[in-house]
Amino acid sequence: MSAGMIKSIEWKGDHLRIIDQTKIPEKLTYLELFTVEEVYESIRRLEVRGAPAIGVAAAYGLYLGMRGRSSKNRNDFLMQTASVADRLSGARPTAINLRWALNSILTRIRELNLNPDELLGEVLHLARDIHQDDIDRCEQIGRFGASLIKSGDTILTHCNTGALATAGIGTALGAVYTAFQQSKEIQVLVDETRPLLQGARLTMWELEQAGIPATLITDNMAAFAMQKGTVDLVLVGADRIAANGDVANKIGTFHLAIAAHYHDIPFYVAAPLSSFDLSLSEGSQIPIEERSEKEVAVIWDQLNITTLNAKCWNPAFDVTPSELVAGIITEKGIIYPPYKESFENLQLNIKIYSKQEELNL
Amino acid sequence: MSAGMIKSIEWKGDHLRIIDQTKIPEKLTYLELFTVEEVYESIRRLEVRGAPAIGVAAAYGLYLGMRGRSSKNRNDFLMQTASVADRLSGARPTAINLRWALNSILTRIRELNLNPDELLGEVLHLARDIHQDDIDRCEQIGRFGASLIKSGDTILTHCNTGALATAGIGTALGAVYTAFQQSKEIQVLVDETRPLLQGARLTMWELEQAGIPATLITDNMAAFAMQKGTVDLVLVGADRIAANGDVANKIGTFHLAIAAHYHDIPFYVAAPLSSFDLSLSEGSQIPIEERSEKEVAVIWDQLNITTLNAKCWNPAFDVTPSELVAGIITEKGIIYPPYKESFENLQLNIKIYSKQEELNL
Repeated sequence: MSAGMIKSIEWKGDHLRIIDQTKIPEKLTYLELFTVEEVYESIRRLEVRGAPAIGVAAAYGLYLGMRGRSSKNRNDFLMQTASVADRLSGARPTAINLRWALNSILTRIRELNLNPDELLGEVLHLARDIHQDDIDRCEQIGRFGASLIKSGDTILTHCNTGALATAGIGTALGAVYTAFQQSKEIQVLVDETRPLLQGARLTMWELEQAGIPATLITDNMAAFAMQKGTVDLVLVGADRIAANGDVANKIGTFHLAIAAHYHDIPFYVAAPLSSFDLSLSEGSQIPIEERSEKEVAVIWDQLNITTLNAKCWNPAFDVTPSELVAGIITEKGIIYPPYKESFENLQLNIKIYSKQEELNL
Repeated sequence: MSAGMIKSIEWKGDHLRIIDQTKIPEKLTYLELFTVEEVYESIRRLEVRGAPAIGVAAAYGLYLGMRGRSSKNRNDFLMQTASVADRLSGARPTAINLRWALNSILTRIRELNLNPDELLGEVLHLARDIHQDDIDRCEQIGRFGASLIKSGDTILTHCNTGALATAGIGTALGAVYTAFQQSKEIQVLVDETRPLLQGARLTMWELEQAGIPATLITDNMAAFAMQKGTVDLVLVGADRIAANGDVANKIGTFHLAIAAHYHDIPFYVAAPLSSFDLSLSEGSQIPIEERSEKEVAVIWDQLNITTLNAKCWNPAFDVTPSELVAGIITEKGIIYPPYKESFENLQLNIKIYSKQEELNL
């Protein structure tokens, strides 16, 4: 199986099929989602996860939430859509892709003078566009990212940024897949990514499917590996990127960036432009999701590793200051510091996304 | 229960009783060790662990290994002792305390002109001295370490350096206990310490017994906590300290030291002088134990967290360069950089320990 054959999200004509990522690698099972509440819960429970993937799932969720509702007129439809989008966007706070996808659809349908039935069709159409768009963006990110990878390199990565995290081949891991397809001899060092073990469970599984040599380490071994000269390049994804280039990503990313900086190892972030939030001037403004203490105390919902009364802290993301980021790999190319100026010069399509705060979401 | 009441090691007149640390916090069980092989296996399996504690256990192990042997004469006894010590010192390679304890006994008995029976008695006597000595060293380290802790501080720690890791109240955690007894209002942030979870399992359990407020985090959250301003001080232990002040300690310590450095947070190491190895000019010469891949793939020997064929890497220790260490807390006081000069000026008793390589161990 290659990365391209793993379909984390599929639209099945009348419902959404997702891979249940909480069960990987134990078993490959699918969930069939017919309602917006099912999509909402799947996002919250991390059955579907990865910033780009939850953006796509939410887009279909918006359609599922509007289907079957009766709307008196266009305005009524638009108001209801905003309300469903509001609900969905609360499922997870840090990844901006969720709100970006919903916002893209809301913005578009508000421009259309159509009746409710036509608008509903348009919502589905736009969701499918966002889906295809994500596949395309991954291809481009993979292509640009692979240009940074030389034959012989060992790439250290964190969390899961592959086919499971997106509708396509992935972001950071997409670059790895692309380099491998270009016949570069590469190896991947995979951070297990506590507490939810996305590296150990998902990335190791994906890389095994793809036949790419991978070695699992605990998160706290990364600095040791760097000191030993094992790591040529660090590649991670992003959940939200602020206007100054600060990057919110899975907890542990910041730790990794500091260690890479100390060892003078390039640290790159790969993300579609849908992960950019230029409405925030810096990373400290990005909301950091704090999840249940139980995710730390009880591994994979099965094994309690501490005392029964232990107090735990579970921030799910951290923010890496842009000074530690060598470059950001997007579908439009690799963006280098100074980020604020680079973002402005690029005049990216991001402008519309940065207006979401005004859009009643 | 206070830290002083946890007895990780007890000499029971004719055998050694240890707490089985692989079962904490699930249950508090004891193992009764009557032979040197039982001690050897307990050290290897980490049933008894912590650099100072395995030094004490090995000292008694040497006695248990010689008891019941018949030696023709003094020379024969000395040769057999060296052979048993050689076996024991191979149980774990990184912590120098193991070899230090054995070496201390060998050095001492070689100076005595006694018959085998008398020498055997002397071995037990010396083992008991080393045991009591460790209790006393912990008290002193605790006292010096506590001087660095202010009321209101949050101390971040890694692995377990408390009553379980030593014969006394501990090293880094000993400083925490002492500060708490001095009525300082403190909190502890505990790194879970993958792969073997000594922080989650042992340190959280000890701190709960002692009534000290503690919060568990995954290792990769430490940098985030520092960025949030939560951490006033990092306190860790050591398994071996080289002549230039480089510190080998549980994997993840180096990562922590880099993060503390980046945030300008003081990073202190607490260790008895028995953890110093001045025969090594720098940390890169310290042998790093690599343990079974299974310890990474299967948590606590119970829960497989990755694919069945996953390749893992499991270095059990790392080396923190002395440039990242603000000070080393010993039983003789706190040693500050430049370490090489400080060690030389102190004319520590360490000189005899540095000769172990010549002693046929």
